[in-house]
Amino acid sequence: MRVDGVSTRTIWADPAQARVSIIDQTLLPHRFAVVTLTRVEEAATAIRDMQVRGAPLIGVAAAYGLALAMAEDAGDESLSRAGAMLAATRPTAVNLRWALDEMRDALAPLPASARADAAFAHAARLAEEDVARNAAIGRHGLELLRGLAARKGGRLNILTHCNAGWLATVDWGTATAPIYMAHDAGIDLHVFVDETRPRNQGAALTAWELAQHGVPHTLIVDNAGGRLMQCGDIDCVIVGTDRTTANGDVCNKIGTYLKALAAQDNGVPFYVAAPSPSIDFALASGAEIPIEERSGREVTHLSGLTEDGRLETILLTVASSPAANPAFDVTPARLVTGLITERGVIAATHEALAAAFPERVVR
Amino acid sequence: MRVDGVSTRTIWADPAQARVSIIDQTLLPHRFAVVTLTRVEEAATAIRDMQVRGAPLIGVAAAYGLALAMAEDAGDESLSRAGAMLAATRPTAVNLRWALDEMRDALAPLPASARADAAFAHAARLAEEDVARNAAIGRHGLELLRGLAARKGGRLNILTHCNAGWLATVDWGTATAPIYMAHDAGIDLHVFVDETRPRNQGAALTAWELAQHGVPHTLIVDNAGGRLMQCGDIDCVIVGTDRTTANGDVCNKIGTYLKALAAQDNGVPFYVAAPSPSIDFALASGAEIPIEERSGREVTHLSGLTEDGRLETILLTVASSPAANPAFDVTPARLVTGLITERGVIAATHEALAAAFPERVVR
Repeated sequence: MRVDGVSTRTIWADPAQARVSIIDQTLLPHRFAVVTLTRVEEAATAIRDMQVRGAPLIGVAAAYGLALAMAEDAGDESLSRAGAMLAATRPTAVNLRWALDEMRDALAPLPASARADAAFAHAARLAEEDVARNAAIGRHGLELLRGLAARKGGRLNILTHCNAGWLATVDWGTATAPIYMAHDAGIDLHVFVDETRPRNQGAALTAWELAQHGVPHTLIVDNAGGRLMQCGDIDCVIVGTDRTTANGDVCNKIGTYLKALAAQDNGVPFYVAAPSPSIDFALASGAEIPIEERSGREVTHLSGLTEDGRLETILLTVASSPAANPAFDVTPARLVTGLITERGVIAATHEALAAAFPERVVR
Repeated sequence: MRVDGVSTRTIWADPAQARVSIIDQTLLPHRFAVVTLTRVEEAATAIRDMQVRGAPLIGVAAAYGLALAMAEDAGDESLSRAGAMLAATRPTAVNLRWALDEMRDALAPLPASARADAAFAHAARLAEEDVARNAAIGRHGLELLRGLAARKGGRLNILTHCNAGWLATVDWGTATAPIYMAHDAGIDLHVFVDETRPRNQGAALTAWELAQHGVPHTLIVDNAGGRLMQCGDIDCVIVGTDRTTANGDVCNKIGTYLKALAAQDNGVPFYVAAPSPSIDFALASGAEIPIEERSGREVTHLSGLTEDGRLETILLTVASSPAANPAFDVTPARLVTGLITERGVIAATHEALAAAFPERVVR
């Protein structure tokens, strides 16, 4: 998508120079900075410190990290050491492990002399696959939004939660792909952006990328979405998903479930952009998904920009008060109007998922 | 309730010296400071700048403000000028206007020489009535919690939203009155405190007052409550209300409605502490309640304490991104398990409200 008017991806490589460039997302929205990685250690740090984040982007960044390792030393020991180092950066990221397995399977059979070139080529392929998948989600979602806009006959108001945006992927995003495509197609739309406490990815990332691409939007606190729906101010909700189970239950950023309840209570369609790598047929339902409990400090402290331009971290509460911080919740399939996948918009049911992705079904 | 181990109210007066003391709530939770008011202008500023906030406390503070005016000049012109000045501080606060009307009706017939003493006495009576009402809510709520605790047979987990606490009233609070009474009665309980964006009254005020009184509690983001209910970690919800309409619809701080939906979806009892002054029989349903839209800056900026002890305000998002900030939402009566009033726990229906408060019904 566009940054300062220039089409930009979240990651790009120069194989000849063995360099990989990323956007340091920890500095957004206050500063846009490109970081160039030349060593696998730098790639591991970038993933661990969340300079790159979002399941699809993490997978591609890890693949490029392995390519950087191969450019330095393409031996077997380097291959396995780099793989282990990258896998340890985000222990619960499914895409990370999947991308690293793909890379190892592709590189291990090759002679060392061929591995660096092959690694960059394979990482680039993973990146292109992500872009193509998101673009397909965008096209299917665009038709949905076109239909809603036609029925409404006025500006379409979409609510989104967290950042399932361009910044979480290589390009387009998942939940944002339909939004960008509809905006680019001239459909009059406006996005309500949940700030998404505690890490504020909505306020920091989604608002930033929508602003850069010129999509009209308004920031709201996570508490406000229900009220807006009661007032008829939301025409549909589109969110992303970290994991969708075989029955269509959706695990996504904490607070998603509350918006799904409000959407159902007010007859607002609730869509989940679900690229196939996020669909986990091995889990029968959301009850089986382990939920990450993160540091309470993310709740008690917050960072931002002071009036005079300094980044500052502040305490919001009583220093002695403990905080709990579950990172995700599960939205039951019964609350999901449809899953927007790269193969079309489907019902959040086992039957529909198995029909759309028969090769992924676990027997 | 207790502050540093000492029983404290949110407002107290010394009529002989014509002084009124308040807690500067804008400095909480980082600093506890008592401010002494000697002039009506200072009382007006304290209300307008939200050093005192919460409907019941605002009403009492305005009454004492009028008493300060009478101590300085008890003439008719002073009486009407002070009333107008205080009424203008928070244009939408119903209690404020009600308390000022009460005071004017009591003082206007008196000779000027008797007005100052009468004003302090009348303001003190309003304060005592608030304390008695909240204590009654606490006693009725205590029985509820005692029943829940007995059925559960272990630590009771209560979720609350915003600050319907001691700090919003003269003492006890509304939603917190049952919690303090149950805690003081030795019932093993723990409170999950919604931080309550955008103004963070949960993180700043509720956490502080629970900590001061020694009530076990955990701070969570507003997004987390649904997940906790899904996991069976919440035994009941108790919130306050700014206005309850004749049919039992509850207007309260933005985000309350989302918690009520989650409570219903998970079979968790959802109680509203509703002192009778907040019940508005003139409005048939929540649809008639005008909702205040506050400054977007409350969403985009946040204040807190830096590591080195300075109060700092930070920007959380893109400087150019607009923000919307509806301050309240309406929880439909169908989602309310019961209203905890000073006359007992009643159903959120017109019949039950009219039976409990027949003298308040608008014919």
